[in-house]
Amino acid sequence: MTYCCGLMLEKGLVLMSDTRTNSGVDNISVFRKMFNFSVPGERTITLMTAGNLATTQSVVSQLEERSKIPDERDNVLFGADTMFQVATRVGRLLRETVAERQKANDREGTRSFSASIIIAGQIAGMEPRLFMVYPEGNFIEASTETPFFQIGETKYGRPILLRGYDRTMSFEDAVKLLLVSFDSTLAANLSVGMPLDCMVLEKDNFEPLHERRFDSNDTYVKAISDEWNVALREAFMGLPDYSFYDPED
Amino acid sequence: MTYCCGLMLEKGLVLMSDTRTNSGVDNISVFRKMFNFSVPGERTITLMTAGNLATTQSVVSQLEERSKIPDERDNVLFGADTMFQVATRVGRLLRETVAERQKANDREGTRSFSASIIIAGQIAGMEPRLFMVYPEGNFIEASTETPFFQIGETKYGRPILLRGYDRTMSFEDAVKLLLVSFDSTLAANLSVGMPLDCMVLEKDNFEPLHERRFDSNDTYVKAISDEWNVALREAFMGLPDYSFYDPED
Repeated sequence: MTYCCGLMLEKGLVLMSDTRTNSGVDNISVFRKMFNFSVPGERTITLMTAGNLATTQSVVSQLEERSKIPDERDNVLFGADTMFQVATRVGRLLRETVAERQKANDREGTRSFSASIIIAGQIAGMEPRLFMVYPEGNFIEASTETPFFQIGETKYGRPILLRGYDRTMSFEDAVKLLLVSFDSTLAANLSVGMPLDCMVLEKDNFEPLHERRFDSNDTYVKAISDEWNVALREAFMGLPDYSFYDPED
Repeated sequence: MTYCCGLMLEKGLVLMSDTRTNSGVDNISVFRKMFNFSVPGERTITLMTAGNLATTQSVVSQLEERSKIPDERDNVLFGADTMFQVATRVGRLLRETVAERQKANDREGTRSFSASIIIAGQIAGMEPRLFMVYPEGNFIEASTETPFFQIGETKYGRPILLRGYDRTMSFEDAVKLLLVSFDSTLAANLSVGMPLDCMVLEKDNFEPLHERRFDSNDTYVKAISDEWNVALREAFMGLPDYSFYDPED
């Protein structure tokens, strides 16, 4: 499993991903699921991947290879004029990669080899944008009504995002919010695991403003986890008490 | 979908279930998913059901019919000597009901017509017990390490249970905890819906101590939902602030 989440804020984009991959519970590895491609001053694009690891590694490797060849006609990330074009091309590449593997294994139409991708980024002269790409190659874009996307194990960490998110929040508060969301997920699903990768893309700054890998010994992560535990219990105890006798009766 | 949860406490058992069933998002109905069978002074048994509605209604109807026939040899609920026997027999009935429907529709081995059941109760002279029965007819029992069971849409409401549960808590606090867990689930999954049924089975009291249906206008539920929203945001804001500059560096 995996958990990746991207938040769109007024100030820019904040992203977090775990690094655990598993094939069964007895085969666990650490793999990076967050990949940044930047041309300083011109564009910065970050992908986060969930799903079949061979599929996502293949997609990312193809994107990396194409971005290194000068004047490559198919340079998906650096050759696209808009973030919409980036999403369209990454979607096509993802769909082709999944379909090829399914066909080779006679499993067309199944979810085998499936994967999904969050794309966050900005190209100079345009606004920062956030997309979620499906294995079928189509995609949706974040909006003020739906300002964040999650892929992988999305449910445990969603309630706090629904309540804590505010598009005017600071980057620091957004990182804190994501850590709380990841903490709830880590506590409930063994197949989501540390370390966590974090990246902040500030609007009109075409390089990552901040990158950080949080490992399991990180004192800030430990403090958030411990204090959130206490704060949640206190918040719960502070709620109005229930009585067996309904005052409305 | 459905969400049902049963907590085992030192003082007894606390249960909550939603009432929404849906076949697609355009076909939503209200059905009770919590069923109590009591012989005052001797035994009280409550079932909560999730999964295919025709399956669960069939199981519950069969249990009800058998419990009404005097001297019925197959009186699963009132004829069993122990809660373990109750779980064994309910499991057999569930498995047979699912298998029969699958066989009649040529879908043996699939999850079609599948359902699961939480059984909570006590028979005089023995301890209260809590079981979760799988569609295959086998089951597990709650313990001090795993003192609660959820069926249906379990994930959104799990983080607060993991943090708020305490086996020494009062019944009133347990109802409050379940309402918070359900509130998070209702906010995230449209197919879990009000009203909510709640029941408290006190140890050595062989009738439900407390029963309540919370509808969407309930002032206590509204207060919990509103104040939890505020309390969560305050708890979040009170956590240590993140800084881009790692003090460990």
